[in-house]
Amino acid sequence: MKLVRYGEPGKEKPGILIGEDIFDVSAHVNEYNEDFFGGDGLAELKKKVEGGWLEKVEQPIRLGAPLARPSKIICVGLNYKDHAAETNAPIPVEPILFFKATSAIVGPNDDLIIPKNSKKTDWEVELAIVIGKKASYVEEQDALNHVAGYVLHNDYSEREFQLERNGQWVKGKSCDTFAPLGPFIATKDEIADVHNLRLWLKVNGQTLQDGNTSNLIFNIPFVVSYISQFMTLLPGDVITTGTPAGVGLGQKPEPWYLKEGDVVELGIDGLGSSKQHVKSYQA
Amino acid sequence: MKLVRYGEPGKEKPGILIGEDIFDVSAHVNEYNEDFFGGDGLAELKKKVEGGWLEKVEQPIRLGAPLARPSKIICVGLNYKDHAAETNAPIPVEPILFFKATSAIVGPNDDLIIPKNSKKTDWEVELAIVIGKKASYVEEQDALNHVAGYVLHNDYSEREFQLERNGQWVKGKSCDTFAPLGPFIATKDEIADVHNLRLWLKVNGQTLQDGNTSNLIFNIPFVVSYISQFMTLLPGDVITTGTPAGVGLGQKPEPWYLKEGDVVELGIDGLGSSKQHVKSYQA
Repeated sequence: MKLVRYGEPGKEKPGILIGEDIFDVSAHVNEYNEDFFGGDGLAELKKKVEGGWLEKVEQPIRLGAPLARPSKIICVGLNYKDHAAETNAPIPVEPILFFKATSAIVGPNDDLIIPKNSKKTDWEVELAIVIGKKASYVEEQDALNHVAGYVLHNDYSEREFQLERNGQWVKGKSCDTFAPLGPFIATKDEIADVHNLRLWLKVNGQTLQDGNTSNLIFNIPFVVSYISQFMTLLPGDVITTGTPAGVGLGQKPEPWYLKEGDVVELGIDGLGSSKQHVKSYQA
Repeated sequence: MKLVRYGEPGKEKPGILIGEDIFDVSAHVNEYNEDFFGGDGLAELKKKVEGGWLEKVEQPIRLGAPLARPSKIICVGLNYKDHAAETNAPIPVEPILFFKATSAIVGPNDDLIIPKNSKKTDWEVELAIVIGKKASYVEEQDALNHVAGYVLHNDYSEREFQLERNGQWVKGKSCDTFAPLGPFIATKDEIADVHNLRLWLKVNGQTLQDGNTSNLIFNIPFVVSYISQFMTLLPGDVITTGTPAGVGLGQKPEPWYLKEGDVVELGIDGLGSSKQHVKSYQA
């Protein structure tokens, strides 16, 4: 299944995507949240969808992020060799983890707001994992049993805040609108091989990132197992797995960053695409 | 007022503390959460408490953390000069920020569980701020209007995970039970001068930390305003403001860390005290 949430910000309803059509499932599901993913939500929804009549939602309609605010977004840093190289960072010997504030989450096609005082707002197309079952000290071979599905993410990053404002990356990762998620969560069964998906990103029509999840340094089961050694992953939690080469910070001969009016488009095989218009912060 | 939550883990009810007695307020308040702090929850509760009959809760009873899971816990690193010195770190020129997973939150007197494979589980008594009103780009002179109150926090830290496992402190800050909060949230009006509070911590009866919030490098209004330049603070969010000297990592001639059977007690003037028994992880 492909899970979506649609409607005005803060008032989204759960739906599913079939082909190009959105169907309302709010009669069966309260919310795509910890209770839903951690309980039998997905299995029960599947039964309802297979068995019953569903109401089609009139489009166009805004898409929200395809899940309610999770307890945390855990990010894996420098998880593609070419991206580590372009930022002059060594290949990590074990995963680098950092957090992104959940208050940064927006819908897949909502505007990206350049924060006040930002000069270096950058893009990062990423495959994100949605946790389906509480995970603490999970073995690698069991890790996928704790995954509900996958979702497209643009891990927007303010490089000055992240790297030049006295330590710890979270400062440049957590601004409002810095986490567009979606268009949809693809449940695990929708993706034949999660380690062979093309992911790409364009700014104003120019392709800047064009990678493949086959180049992940640390793969999905390893990452889930690894993180679960340091903290408990809750159902609905989001792990974003890193970005391939081609970010603004890595541009030659000089890095360059987003400005008002730019349009960012990105996508991953099987996970759809999203588009953000870039705006400046207005008080 | 002094806000508490009491009862079994995951089933806590909201109450208030008057003297040594807990009173049930669950008839008036659903939960101490984002809606409560962000709406008129505190003002309405105060009216109910002043006007009405309250049911006393029979004790002893377990205390939970005095608020529901917030959207985030933001930590300020190295915010006391003596602690920066003992860890051989320079005095920060602007606040160092990092996150702690909210899945680490437990009640004030719950056991501290030493994580699997941990050799360096350490303590940090801290004053934490509870946000009362959404804060984005808040000026320093307006910052306290966005604060609901204060709470005692032990920012447990696994130093090997934090410092020797490839970057970014969150890895050593987020283990289960690493964020005992409470006993209570003191609303702002309860604390005459938040910048003149003694804070202390003992391990097995020996005083190891004994500081005062007058020695904070970055004070409360500055910290709230500063963080709000990088992310939006939501009602109920927790900011923990750093620890004074005396952590395990700073012990002379050699650092030393917690082991099964140890007892950690800590307190802050006006914010009560807490006590954690140290246990090893059991699968």
